[in-house]
Amino acid sequence: MIHVRTSIERPDADIVARLGVFSAATIHEAQGRKGALSHRIKPLADSMEFCGPAVTVQASPGDNIMVQVGISYAAPGDVVVVAAGELAHSGSFGDVLATAAQSKGLAAFVTDSGVRDSNDIRAMGFPVFSGSVSIEGTVKETLGTVNEPLVVGGQLVYPGDILKGDADGIVVVRKAEAEAVIDLCQQREDNEDVLRARHRAQEGSVVELHGLVEKLKTKGLVVEV
Amino acid sequence: MIHVRTSIERPDADIVARLGVFSAATIHEAQGRKGALSHRIKPLADSMEFCGPAVTVQASPGDNIMVQVGISYAAPGDVVVVAAGELAHSGSFGDVLATAAQSKGLAAFVTDSGVRDSNDIRAMGFPVFSGSVSIEGTVKETLGTVNEPLVVGGQLVYPGDILKGDADGIVVVRKAEAEAVIDLCQQREDNEDVLRARHRAQEGSVVELHGLVEKLKTKGLVVEV
Amino acid sequence: MIHVRTSIERPDADIVARLGVFSAATIHEAQGRKGALSHRIKPLADSMEFCGPAVTVQASPGDNIMVQVGISYAAPGDVVVVAAGELAHSGSFGDVLATAAQSKGLAAFVTDSGVRDSNDIRAMGFPVFSGSVSIEGTVKETLGTVNEPLVVGGQLVYPGDILKGDADGIVVVRKAEAEAVIDLCQQREDNEDVLRARHRAQEGSVVELHGLVEKLKTKGLVVEV
Amino acid sequence: MIHVRTSIERPDADIVARLGVFSAATIHEAQGRKGALSHRIKPLADSMEFCGPAVTVQASPGDNIMVQVGISYAAPGDVVVVAAGELAHSGSFGDVLATAAQSKGLAAFVTDSGVRDSNDIRAMGFPVFSGSVSIEGTVKETLGTVNEPLVVGGQLVYPGDILKGDADGIVVVRKAEAEAVIDLCQQREDNEDVLRARHRAQEGSVVELHGLVEKLKTKGLVVEV
Amino acid sequence: MIHVRTSIERPDADIVARLGVFSAATIHEAQGRKGALSHRIKPLADSMEFCGPAVTVQASPGDNIMVQVGISYAAPGDVVVVAAGELAHSGSFGDVLATAAQSKGLAAFVTDSGVRDSNDIRAMGFPVFSGSVSIEGTVKETLGTVNEPLVVGGQLVYPGDILKGDADGIVVVRKAEAEAVIDLCQQREDNEDVLRARHRAQEGSVVELHGLVEKLKTKGLVVEV
Amino acid sequence: MIHVRTSIERPDADIVARLGVFSAATIHEAQGRKGALSHRIKPLADSMEFCGPAVTVQASPGDNIMVQVGISYAAPGDVVVVAAGELAHSGSFGDVLATAAQSKGLAAFVTDSGVRDSNDIRAMGFPVFSGSVSIEGTVKETLGTVNEPLVVGGQLVYPGDILKGDADGIVVVRKAEAEAVIDLCQQREDNEDVLRARHRAQEGSVVELHGLVEKLKTKGLVVEV
Repeated sequence: MIHVRTSIERPDADIVARLGVFSAATIHEAQGRKGALSHRIKPLADSMEFCGPAVTVQASPGDNIMVQVGISYAAPGDVVVVAAGELAHSGSFGDVLATAAQSKGLAAFVTDSGVRDSNDIRAMGFPVFSGSVSIEGTVKETLGTVNEPLVVGGQLVYPGDILKGDADGIVVVRKAEAEAVIDLCQQREDNEDVLRARHRAQEGSVVELHGLVEKLKTKGLVVEV
Repeated sequence: MIHVRTSIERPDADIVARLGVFSAATIHEAQGRKGALSHRIKPLADSMEFCGPAVTVQASPGDNIMVQVGISYAAPGDVVVVAAGELAHSGSFGDVLATAAQSKGLAAFVTDSGVRDSNDIRAMGFPVFSGSVSIEGTVKETLGTVNEPLVVGGQLVYPGDILKGDADGIVVVRKAEAEAVIDLCQQREDNEDVLRARHRAQEGSVVELHGLVEKLKTKGLVVEV
Repeated sequence: MIHVRTSIERPDADIVARLGVFSAATIHEAQGRKGALSHRIKPLADSMEFCGPAVTVQASPGDNIMVQVGISYAAPGDVVVVAAGELAHSGSFGDVLATAAQSKGLAAFVTDSGVRDSNDIRAMGFPVFSGSVSIEGTVKETLGTVNEPLVVGGQLVYPGDILKGDADGIVVVRKAEAEAVIDLCQQREDNEDVLRARHRAQEGSVVELHGLVEKLKTKGLVVEV
Repeated sequence: MIHVRTSIERPDADIVARLGVFSAATIHEAQGRKGALSHRIKPLADSMEFCGPAVTVQASPGDNIMVQVGISYAAPGDVVVVAAGELAHSGSFGDVLATAAQSKGLAAFVTDSGVRDSNDIRAMGFPVFSGSVSIEGTVKETLGTVNEPLVVGGQLVYPGDILKGDADGIVVVRKAEAEAVIDLCQQREDNEDVLRARHRAQEGSVVELHGLVEKLKTKGLVVEV
Repeated sequence: MIHVRTSIERPDADIVARLGVFSAATIHEAQGRKGALSHRIKPLADSMEFCGPAVTVQASPGDNIMVQVGISYAAPGDVVVVAAGELAHSGSFGDVLATAAQSKGLAAFVTDSGVRDSNDIRAMGFPVFSGSVSIEGTVKETLGTVNEPLVVGGQLVYPGDILKGDADGIVVVRKAEAEAVIDLCQQREDNEDVLRARHRAQEGSVVELHGLVEKLKTKGLVVEV
Repeated sequence: MIHVRTSIERPDADIVARLGVFSAATIHEAQGRKGALSHRIKPLADSMEFCGPAVTVQASPGDNIMVQVGISYAAPGDVVVVAAGELAHSGSFGDVLATAAQSKGLAAFVTDSGVRDSNDIRAMGFPVFSGSVSIEGTVKETLGTVNEPLVVGGQLVYPGDILKGDADGIVVVRKAEAEAVIDLCQQREDNEDVLRARHRAQEGSVVELHGLVEKLKTKGLVVEV
């Protein structure tokens, strides 16, 4: 017997909203350079972005029956994230499922495998992140799991973890750490605003403005004039 | 001696036109999930699509003399498809050949290797599908074949087979099966129109609207409430 | 001790300007099909292009301290090119460094590894070419070299070599050969202008207009009618 | 909270023993060409082989704490099979764990990631199958699952499924199907014994002895004499 | 209709024998650094080597019916070489076909895809070179070609070309060039015998004994003492 | 002008000898899980191992002139390590250079690209580690560097760093850290001797003997009985 867990603990909507204003790269850096899903998982369009709690789906490669189960039991605002063996030549999600997902208000669909109907999905504007685009359909035969911990894109993701994705990629944030990460993101953004302004004003070289001059000297760097 | 076959059997133009209205993904699914060329072969622009009979070219990797022969003997509406060892770092087709191909009315150019002058070709709007974009030119020394069966993108393609390509990829349809595939595509499209409408109206969950509830129960799926 | 060389010999600005009007593919072909960097290194946007002398940076993979040093000592018009082990899952350059590089008038930034803040950089319009886009930040710990010869994208690049990049990829031209290459490029462009016009006018087949008929016959090609 | 399931249903030892006499390739073919784990997962020595029920471990890539948990709760004769994101540059299992596994009588250790101490393990003769050999150690920080269904080597494996591995690779057999598969394997082996003898005696060509002559003619094959 | 050509022009047995004493690397170098098949195609054992004329088979990926046809019509001493789309996860040749091939006196079997029963084949000692070892069997449905030119391992091979393979890989020699190549190989071997003896006697440094001192100076190399 | 540095600072022979008794995996772990070269760089035989100071060579991909320079100026006991763009299809080192290197007493040859004459080198027993085996020879045209810092196998290596390699791979140790690393290796070995003995005696489960029980409980692991 295979159980589908439906009652996962989700983060507060407020937390998700506040975290979602930062880029995936900023969040990754702010939380100590961890949680990056594989750079191979990218959006169908550069403008797509999302932030939401993960509903985790372990699917059999080349089989999307559990993808359909996962979408069925996900709640508005959720991100359905699928691990299916990084099967590039499989199009496990297309415009019908995208219509279903968008209609019920999901935040995004993420898979380590392939999707299809990419032009239709771009036209719909529903955020879809995948490892590839492939026309090859999938069977509907083998049960997997929903809302168990799984590895996707090289990261272990627990149900209810927060995923943020944009053109640069996807980062996972543990629910318990989100509040702290938001603060660290804000500090980082504030610092970078100052830095960008100083670079635009050409107040100094990169190593000067980034405070690296002493560090470089200590490490033994000598600049020939 | 190497023979170039020029008199291949082509499908009726009407068949090509009627098949061409369906997406590559729909055709792949409708004909029983077969015939998908490798997902690595993609168009230079998402808007590019084509449908036409295959003129098959077996070229030596890094050598485009047979590409030039193939284009020379192809007829308007044909798709010149080249197998050249999946050599990513080769730009075996550029804006001059694209001008020639477009001027004589070819439907598209497909290669498992690379092309170049990508911006020019995008501006021309001629459908070019390739495994990569590379600046590296090719020599013109070694004979191959034209209009013999060959493997390209992991699929055996016979001359005269119909190829349909779009942003999702390329599918090959055997000439003798095309009529039947068209009917299956139409049925599939009609079914999906209904499904999309029902999803938009939120008439049920994915597993309900896709008729999977009983199947899932039989397989042993238990949903925890 | 690690020395940073700052006084490299740069080509004349005039040479750079005249070479820069040709595409990377044309230059590669004109100089005898050599100097192509790996096709995996591509711009963040198809419209990005650049031409300039190389400032070479050897960085430790996953560490961008030398990237910062390289940008600090580069001159307006320079292309900072970084070899960092082709580490795809590293975002060693983002919008802050892009702001710095653009503010001081660099021509472009090139890396065999990854970058991030891709949407911001596209909005800025600063030419950035990379092997990947990744959110993963880098540490700032290990010294490498600046302006020593290095291999990047499978090509040995000397400081002061000229790099030209566009949507098709990047080519390296030795400083001493640039003048001659410019002439060869111009000849090639002139020839291709004629060829394109003749193809548009459909004055003959590809093998006829490209002068391949005799060569093909000599090699043993027989065309079946 | 993360649960480790210890009470899985195992197949009868007799079934395992009878299945284990056949090669992985024979089993794959006999059960209808299904169940092959990725060919990238190979033994440390050609002579290594095993057959046993799967204890499934989902580990965080680069972290082997769950590998240690999985070995701790596995029973003699079990195969501990680990999915850890196909992280090639990780050596998540070495001679200490091999000593532990061998001492408690496990049948084999399988991982989609890397192992190390390969010479020591070869000397011990304990069957270890992996995607790579890497010196890079792993941390012990993140919980995963034990004995939940997971995808490893592109196959969904349930706890208690039977895995057979040898120099050619690994196949998974569903517990409920094992009895039938054994019979099919025996038939196949008997047929192949006859075939090999007839080939050695040169009683006919391959297409004759394999009964393909008519099929080939029907498909349109013409042999030029 | 698909024709199988059986009457190819083979090189003299004497030529094959004399060429076969040289290593694949020596032949590749002697004939001007050309003709190397992809380094991914390797023997099942380091001790396997072969030399013989090519019988070329174009097979549909994952389908070995043409492999069986090719072996059926090959002559003693021939090398059956198969292009099947570089499908790593396919075991298109096993111990039954190896028995057939060895019994009829073929020189070797080469495929760009996978094989299986590797331990059995190693025990038989029949030279088998492949891109991978995989348990996954193949269907027998789709016709291809026999003895047409094809690309395998990135090289265009004509039927009757001579293939030499050993632990380092495989090289193809055009039939018409074989005699000359043998002479060049012998010269190279003679030169290298002298060089190795001089290195063992430590008569000078590598650059001295290989005559590179002047060349290096001319190119601008300065050795710091 | 390109300078070849010959006077690098080497570690004491005693340090090299004492470090060399430990495996690459042990050293990697002991020095804090750092310094592992890519797992793709492996020895030609499992029995090959070495330890010695690095002479670093930056070569142009497909060109081995600098390899010959590097060997010429290396001292007995040195490891010549070459970065040449990870060009798999290049055999930049064969039995002649192996004879030279062995005759002058070098400890090993390491390259991120390919080598050839693999059977001869195995017979000689000289330790050669490479990314591939390929018959394709290289030209001798383009200067690079000797004894500058470079990235090889994803690690920045300075001249004089200590490299240890065995069947599991290669690790780099900074000269200044070697003494401390030796002590840490010895401690680790001592601990593992005890652990292996306790596992053989079956004194407890892996998690018990490795002291993980409390840690697992704290993290939330619950074992179902």
